[in-house]
Amino acid sequence: MSDLHSADPERQLPPDSVGVVIPDVARFTTPLELACGKTLPAYDLVYETYGTLNAERSNAVLVCHALSGHHHAAGYHHPDDRKPGWWDAYIGPGKPVDTERFFVVSVNNLGGCHGSTGPLSHNPETGRLWGPDFPVVTVRDWVTSQARLADRLGITRFAAVIGGSLGGMQVMQWSIDYPERIASAAVIAATPRLSAQNIAFNEVARQAIRSDPDFHAGRYAEHDAVPKRGLKLARMVGHITYLSEDAMGAKFGRDLRSDDLHFGFGVEFQVESYLRYQGDTFSTAFDANTYLLMTKALDYFDPAAEHDGDLARALAPAQCPFLVLSFSSDWRFPPSRSKELVNALIRAGKPVSYANIVSPYGHDAFLLPEPRYQAIFRAFMQRAAPAPRPEATAEETPP
Amino acid sequence: MSDLHSADPERQLPPDSVGVVIPDVARFTTPLELACGKTLPAYDLVYETYGTLNAERSNAVLVCHALSGHHHAAGYHHPDDRKPGWWDAYIGPGKPVDTERFFVVSVNNLGGCHGSTGPLSHNPETGRLWGPDFPVVTVRDWVTSQARLADRLGITRFAAVIGGSLGGMQVMQWSIDYPERIASAAVIAATPRLSAQNIAFNEVARQAIRSDPDFHAGRYAEHDAVPKRGLKLARMVGHITYLSEDAMGAKFGRDLRSDDLHFGFGVEFQVESYLRYQGDTFSTAFDANTYLLMTKALDYFDPAAEHDGDLARALAPAQCPFLVLSFSSDWRFPPSRSKELVNALIRAGKPVSYANIVSPYGHDAFLLPEPRYQAIFRAFMQRAAPAPRPEATAEETPP
Repeated sequence: MSDLHSADPERQLPPDSVGVVIPDVARFTTPLELACGKTLPAYDLVYETYGTLNAERSNAVLVCHALSGHHHAAGYHHPDDRKPGWWDAYIGPGKPVDTERFFVVSVNNLGGCHGSTGPLSHNPETGRLWGPDFPVVTVRDWVTSQARLADRLGITRFAAVIGGSLGGMQVMQWSIDYPERIASAAVIAATPRLSAQNIAFNEVARQAIRSDPDFHAGRYAEHDAVPKRGLKLARMVGHITYLSEDAMGAKFGRDLRSDDLHFGFGVEFQVESYLRYQGDTFSTAFDANTYLLMTKALDYFDPAAEHDGDLARALAPAQCPFLVLSFSSDWRFPPSRSKELVNALIRAGKPVSYANIVSPYGHDAFLLPEPRYQAIFRAFMQRAAPAPRPEATAEETPP
Repeated sequence: MSDLHSADPERQLPPDSVGVVIPDVARFTTPLELACGKTLPAYDLVYETYGTLNAERSNAVLVCHALSGHHHAAGYHHPDDRKPGWWDAYIGPGKPVDTERFFVVSVNNLGGCHGSTGPLSHNPETGRLWGPDFPVVTVRDWVTSQARLADRLGITRFAAVIGGSLGGMQVMQWSIDYPERIASAAVIAATPRLSAQNIAFNEVARQAIRSDPDFHAGRYAEHDAVPKRGLKLARMVGHITYLSEDAMGAKFGRDLRSDDLHFGFGVEFQVESYLRYQGDTFSTAFDANTYLLMTKALDYFDPAAEHDGDLARALAPAQCPFLVLSFSSDWRFPPSRSKELVNALIRAGKPVSYANIVSPYGHDAFLLPEPRYQAIFRAFMQRAAPAPRPEATAEETPP
C-alpha cells in the first residue's frame, strides 16, 4: 500500500487541503533582547507557508500558535500522515483563511520543541543543551521575533494576524507593538490576562513536571531520561480544562471500560482511559522544559499591567479592526474574558466585532469546524483580503 | 503559657464550642461483607460524640465526612489546638446542629487514616500493613458500618443524618438502605453521581499518587517512604476544584509574591505559593492509599445505576424529609447536580426542601459560616429535633 502512496503521494489528500508542506528554517544572527533581561545571541525559527505572496506583498497572514502548538497549522508533512496541521479546518483553499487569496505564515515560537531554538537546542556559549537555562520568553518576545521573520520574508504589513488561546494573546501584542504592521486582528478564545485559577492549573502542571524525579532539574536529556510521568499529569490536567464538562459528559458519561465495575484501582471508566492515553501520547511528543516556558508565557501575559491595569490604555496604539470570538462552553477562557477585551477595545475607540459561538466543546472548540464560527471568521477574513490588482484584473478581462 | 492552659484548659475556647473532645473507638468482630465481594473480618471505627443522648435515644444525629475529612467535626482535641473540628461552624451549643438538643455522632470512615481500620492498619491474616491491599470500600459499605456503630450506641433511629460533599452521598445511601432508621436527611453540596469531569479530576489525583516513585505500589510504609509529591499534586488539583474561580480571584488575583516579576521558574504569584503550601501540608498529614480509596468511593457512588439510571426509583424506599442545599459558585458539585436529586425526590413523592445558597466560596462554602445557610440548616434541624418528653415537661412545670 505504501508503494501506491509513493506512486501518487497526494491522491488521498482532501481537495480543500493545502497539500504536503515542507517547513522552512530562518536563521537570525542579530541578538534578540528578551523581556527577562537576557539576550539570545542567535536563533532559528521554523515556519511553514501556505498560498502565494502577491506582488504587493499585501496578502500575508500570520498564524500564532497556542500552548502545545507549533508551526504545522495546515496540510500534511507526508501524504501518509493520518492528521493534518492543527488548524486545518480553517486554513486551505476555499476555507475561512483562504490560501487562494492569502499567503499564510505559521511559525513555531522561540522556546518551542518543534524546530525553533529552544531548550532542545545548544547554547552556543556553553556547547551544552539549553535545557532549563533557556531564558524565559514572553508573548512580547515572540511578537518581536515574528516581526523579524516578517522582515526576512519581505512582509512589511500583515493583512491579518490571527490566533486562538495563547495565539490570541500574540495577536493582541502585535496590535500594540506593531500597529502599523497589522491590518486586522482575530483574537479567538483568548483572554487579556490569566485568572488566578488559570495560573493555579498551570502551577499544578509545572509542579507535576518539576517534581518528577526524571526531570533532573531540567537536565533530563543529559541523564538520558524523560520526565514522562510529570508531562503526562500536566497534559491530563490541561486536557480537562480544554473540554467542557458537558462535552466530557456527552463523550464519556459514566461509561465503563468493560461491562462491569471491578471495584479496584485500575481504569474503570472510559474517561480515565482517555485521559491516560492523551497524557501518554503527549509525554513522548513534547518537551518538558518547553511546557514550562509556554505556561510561564501564559502567566506573565498582561498588557494592561504596564498601564495601571487599564487595558483600554494598553490597546491605545492599535489601529486595526478586531474580530473577537469566544465559545459558550469554554471555561478555561470563558466568554466573560473575551468581553473584557471587547469592552476595552470599545473604550479605546477601536473597531471590533464580537461573537460568542454556541458550542458544547469547551476551549477546544477553537480548533473544530463549526458553521457559525466558520461563517464569521470567513466574513472577517474576506474584509481583510487585499483587493485584486486593477492591472491583473484588466489583463484577465477579454478586451 | 502552656502551664496556664493546663491550669484552666478550656478558658480560651469559645463559649459556643463543644469544648475539648476525646475520640472513642468501637471494635467490631462480626465480619463485614463489602460491595467489592471481600470481607473485613474485624475492624475499628473511631468516632466522637458531642452533646448527650436522651433517655429515649431519639436525639442522635450522625455526621458523615467528606473526601479528606474524619471524625473530628467539632470542638478541640487539646485546648491549645489552633483550629477546631472541620464543621465546628455548624455543630455546638446554640449552633444549627445544637448540641444542647442533639447527641451528635461523627465517625471516621472505614479505609480512613485517622484511627478507623484502613490501609494504615494491620491485616490480621498476614500481619502486614493492609496498605494497597485494603479492599475498595463504597458509600454503601460505610453506611452499613455506621449502622452497626449506631447499634452499638443503642441508637435505633437517627433524628437526622447529615453531611456535605461525599458526606451527603452517605446521607442519600442511608435514606435508601435504612429508611426506618433515619428521621431526616440533610444532603449538602453533593451529587447523586459524579460527572465525567469529576471522575477525570479524581483520576489525575490518583495518577499523581500512583506515578510517584515513592508510592512503591502502595507499600511505601514498608519502604520507609511517603509519596509526598503525588499527594501534594493530588491536593493541589483538588483544592482548585474546591474554590470558585471568583473566590480564587478575590483572594489572590494576580498578586505577586514580591514586588516585581522575576521572569523565572520560581513561585511568582501568590496563588502558586498558596497551592504549594496547601499541597505540602496535606502531603504530610494524609495517607496516600486512603486518598485513593476515598476518590474511588466517590467515583463508584451511583444509586440510580441499580435502577436503570432512574434516581427516583432508587430513592423510593426513603421515608424521611430531605433538606438539599447547594452553593451558587460550587463548580465541583454545582447547583444543577443538587437539582437532579431534588427533582428525583419530587418524582418519588418525598418531602424535600431545597435552597441554593448564594456564596462566592465554591464547594468549600459548605464548611464556612454563612447567615442564610445557617438559618436554613438551623430551621431544618429544629424540625428534626424530638419534642421534649411530656413527663419531663410535667415534672418541670409547677403544679
